[in-house]
Amino acid sequence: MNETPNREQRYRQRMQRKKEIIDAAIAKADQEKGLLLIHTGNGKGKSSAAFGMVVRALGHGMRVAVAQFIKGRSDTGEEAFLRQQPDVTWLVLGEGFTWDTQDLAHDIETAQRGWSMARGFLQDPSIDLVVLDELTYPVSYGWIDLAFALEDLKKRPAMQHVIITGRNAPKAFCEAADTVTEFCNVKHAFYSGIKAQRGIDL
Amino acid sequence: MNETPNREQRYRQRMQRKKEIIDAAIAKADQEKGLLLIHTGNGKGKSSAAFGMVVRALGHGMRVAVAQFIKGRSDTGEEAFLRQQPDVTWLVLGEGFTWDTQDLAHDIETAQRGWSMARGFLQDPSIDLVVLDELTYPVSYGWIDLAFALEDLKKRPAMQHVIITGRNAPKAFCEAADTVTEFCNVKHAFYSGIKAQRGIDL
Repeated sequence: MNETPNREQRYRQRMQRKKEIIDAAIAKADQEKGLLLIHTGNGKGKSSAAFGMVVRALGHGMRVAVAQFIKGRSDTGEEAFLRQQPDVTWLVLGEGFTWDTQDLAHDIETAQRGWSMARGFLQDPSIDLVVLDELTYPVSYGWIDLAFALEDLKKRPAMQHVIITGRNAPKAFCEAADTVTEFCNVKHAFYSGIKAQRGIDL
Repeated sequence: MNETPNREQRYRQRMQRKKEIIDAAIAKADQEKGLLLIHTGNGKGKSSAAFGMVVRALGHGMRVAVAQFIKGRSDTGEEAFLRQQPDVTWLVLGEGFTWDTQDLAHDIETAQRGWSMARGFLQDPSIDLVVLDELTYPVSYGWIDLAFALEDLKKRPAMQHVIITGRNAPKAFCEAADTVTEFCNVKHAFYSGIKAQRGIDL
């Protein structure tokens, strides 16, 4: 007769113990600082996850800057939508991938000019979140000096968050980062013959 | 004397060949359909990536519905920001994790009521993108029937995109999906004692 209340009671006790463990872990994590996050790997969602955090930041009244290092096209949904937001500064610094531009000297010049603009964001304490979208490519190619970039990242305002996206993140970025997520491709529609879809891929 | 122009020329030829291969792959991917995407794994960014795609969709004038199956709190940045958007419907269906609620029968009831509301989105062709945030948990717990959920997903409008987020996505969801990304935790600030940060974690 008492089975049901006992079972419920045991469940509640088990959950209460779990809650205490989790609450203790949350209480232990008491530091606040500007975070450096890396979104790397060959899977889909690296830039999208950064834009999702832009939305989080905007919801808290924070100011955001986005610098896109590769993307040349300007017809993406994220740009159309986020550019309209008064608290977002949006810079398209790239002109496409190397196979689109086919001009190495020009690509290097573009990347370096891009970094000098991104550095401006990293020196501006009024910007709460900086997204350096696809920065890993020009750094991996050696077009932007890794050591200089790291130095600029380290000198940024103490509470400023930075998200770097792109495949093959340099090891030094990951070492300097607070949070590193690898986006692993398990399955991708593109390889089943489905074209890039508005709202999902662009 | 001719070394530099030759090198540039070779670079251009190499990039041109690369471009042809990539363009051919892009041309081959010519189908369009509503996609089912799964964001799973223990890494950070699963929900953020979904919200980034919400922003992409809004930028193209698409209509979006978000159903949150676990999250009980209503003070997140994404909710504050996205709820204001006229093309977004936002439902908080959960009341927290099991260790917060500690009432199994009530949790099951909440989850099932949640699914019946989500099903409404999956039957509405005017909604272009549906986010089923943290759906993997109530399905893994058996609170929402996996077979019923799959059936509702399959019967949805042909051009409707759906994103399911959460750890341990059931195999049947992954098999039914067009794109599956596993978010792998390489390093997380929380485990270094840094608390959840506004604009990044909430």
